[in-house]
Amino acid sequence: MARIYNFSAGPAVLPLEALQEAQADLVDYKGSGMSIMEMSHRGKEYDAIHNEAIANAKELLGIGDDYSLLFIQGGASLQFAMIPMNFLGENQSADYINAGAWGAKAIKEAGLIGNVNVAADCQKDIPTRMPDLAECNWTDGAAYAHITTNETISGAQMKEIPKVEAPLIADMSSDILSRKLDYTQFDMFYAGAQKNLGPSGLAMVAIKNELAARGNIGLPSMLKYQSYIDANSLFNTPPCFGIYMLCLTTRLLKKKGMDAVFAENAEKAAMIYNTLDATDFYRGTAKTDCRSDMNITFRLPSEELEALFISQAAEAGMKQLKGHRSVGGIRASIYNAFPIDGVKCLVDFMKDFEQRNG
Amino acid sequence: MARIYNFSAGPAVLPLEALQEAQADLVDYKGSGMSIMEMSHRGKEYDAIHNEAIANAKELLGIGDDYSLLFIQGGASLQFAMIPMNFLGENQSADYINAGAWGAKAIKEAGLIGNVNVAADCQKDIPTRMPDLAECNWTDGAAYAHITTNETISGAQMKEIPKVEAPLIADMSSDILSRKLDYTQFDMFYAGAQKNLGPSGLAMVAIKNELAARGNIGLPSMLKYQSYIDANSLFNTPPCFGIYMLCLTTRLLKKKGMDAVFAENAEKAAMIYNTLDATDFYRGTAKTDCRSDMNITFRLPSEELEALFISQAAEAGMKQLKGHRSVGGIRASIYNAFPIDGVKCLVDFMKDFEQRNG
Repeated sequence: MARIYNFSAGPAVLPLEALQEAQADLVDYKGSGMSIMEMSHRGKEYDAIHNEAIANAKELLGIGDDYSLLFIQGGASLQFAMIPMNFLGENQSADYINAGAWGAKAIKEAGLIGNVNVAADCQKDIPTRMPDLAECNWTDGAAYAHITTNETISGAQMKEIPKVEAPLIADMSSDILSRKLDYTQFDMFYAGAQKNLGPSGLAMVAIKNELAARGNIGLPSMLKYQSYIDANSLFNTPPCFGIYMLCLTTRLLKKKGMDAVFAENAEKAAMIYNTLDATDFYRGTAKTDCRSDMNITFRLPSEELEALFISQAAEAGMKQLKGHRSVGGIRASIYNAFPIDGVKCLVDFMKDFEQRNG
Repeated sequence: MARIYNFSAGPAVLPLEALQEAQADLVDYKGSGMSIMEMSHRGKEYDAIHNEAIANAKELLGIGDDYSLLFIQGGASLQFAMIPMNFLGENQSADYINAGAWGAKAIKEAGLIGNVNVAADCQKDIPTRMPDLAECNWTDGAAYAHITTNETISGAQMKEIPKVEAPLIADMSSDILSRKLDYTQFDMFYAGAQKNLGPSGLAMVAIKNELAARGNIGLPSMLKYQSYIDANSLFNTPPCFGIYMLCLTTRLLKKKGMDAVFAENAEKAAMIYNTLDATDFYRGTAKTDCRSDMNITFRLPSEELEALFISQAAEAGMKQLKGHRSVGGIRASIYNAFPIDGVKCLVDFMKDFEQRNG
């Protein structure tokens, strides 16, 4: 088997150990005679996985019993709707930061439900960036404030989390558990699993119980956070296989230790950014102090060279380096599970490519 | 490896061939160097799976281009909300049949959105049953009529589909693609995948395009059928692995041929019902003309004997035979992927158990 280096922005690379364990147990889970996909979600085997996944995630995040850790289908995109449906009342407004495509999508969906105040808008700025805290106009009495901590497409990451009066809600789909952060500063945060946590089809949501309790009680059960809290995310059949994979990846993070994970992520990003900064041939697209450690976006002197870079990298075993179709260029997504050897391989390739084409 | 006979009501048994293929390819999908879980949902490998899954399902269902075949997260439970949110206007009402726990849940969620007329209610009848067509009170001008074709918990199945003026919408979670049926009599039908189609975390929805076009356009994107149609179920990252498994199971159904599938399902059910009917020791819980071919529910003379039956069956390699916690008794769920050898094994065990305990 020849595994390639997979720079996909999501669904993204998973830890090889987790994949191998899932593979070994796929047809007969731990001698049960069944696949984990074939088991009742109320049976003892799945129950153990479900609760371990929750416990692992809470421990890694450093959040206590004042939070509930939920698994909800529909990815971050359904959260864009559920948040205003639960928390944005008729005579209120909610503050949103628009610093990229994901923030913009969250705003669009919230605007279908209620009043939105865009507290800062730098979505179209070049170089891509996050707003300075000083430029954010927070509303008195806002229902909540919503931020996107990492913009996967533009490659900009929020380095300092704003302090606001309103409940603070963060979309952390592409940088959850990737850097040292005090998660108790958020009243709610969520992440589509398919970048740092597991496969697609699952969002992990952490929410303060007292915030959830204030949600709109008239909503359908599947759209109400309180339903998921009351049933420990078993109100209906959960996406069992995705939660199983998340259980395996969080188990590996615990084993490695988050300090080691954070240090390696910083080292991986620095290796690529140092390569960019050593030359004019490559040009990073994000403002230096907003550079994402997860999605590293850069341009070459021409689109022709970019296409050549992508195809030659693929031939050398480095795939999915193409930037998002809306912006072009190169994007190297290097989430927790991306191996440091793959970064070394990319950096060597970048230097060689420049020598041949610079 | 010792596979057991898995009578789970869902998540349920999957075809062994599909599990073995998924296992073989789990770490390195077809020489790509990546798991199917690690690939962009816009890349060529996943794209081929996605479109094959849709094409297979449409072919097996016998529906044409006037329908869209969608993959939506949240299972049937989210459909309970999406249907009235899309189609139940303020000054309208919708007709629902309540013939069991799932119909009742659909009604509860619809009632949170708008006016519901319960066209027939036999939810609590013993023996469990479906309403006669003559007892249904359909409303003139109803927004739609909603039925549940098979009640997984009670073991009752609708043998004749009602003809109504309003758009007909069916929850077919536990009997889709299990029997000969003209699917074009429905304007919309849907199924949580985790019984006859694949793993949990996915609902398959077939909807007439002209019905979808009439949906409430003010809804959040993720709750609007039209969003899924416009984006071929790729509005956001879909549950790729679940769709991949559904692709494999539908491929196997095509290979076997639906006539053979239907005949085998009828034979499997008849074997168990004939065993029930040959004795007073076992007592089927559904009215004879409403007996489900998918979920066969029965009682023994005492709860003690039922507990003994379940534990001795498990020792003999037949698992998950316990009835739903809300009703007790025994439930043998024998979906498409359940092997006929497992039914023979159960029937032999039933006869032996009666001899020892009758």
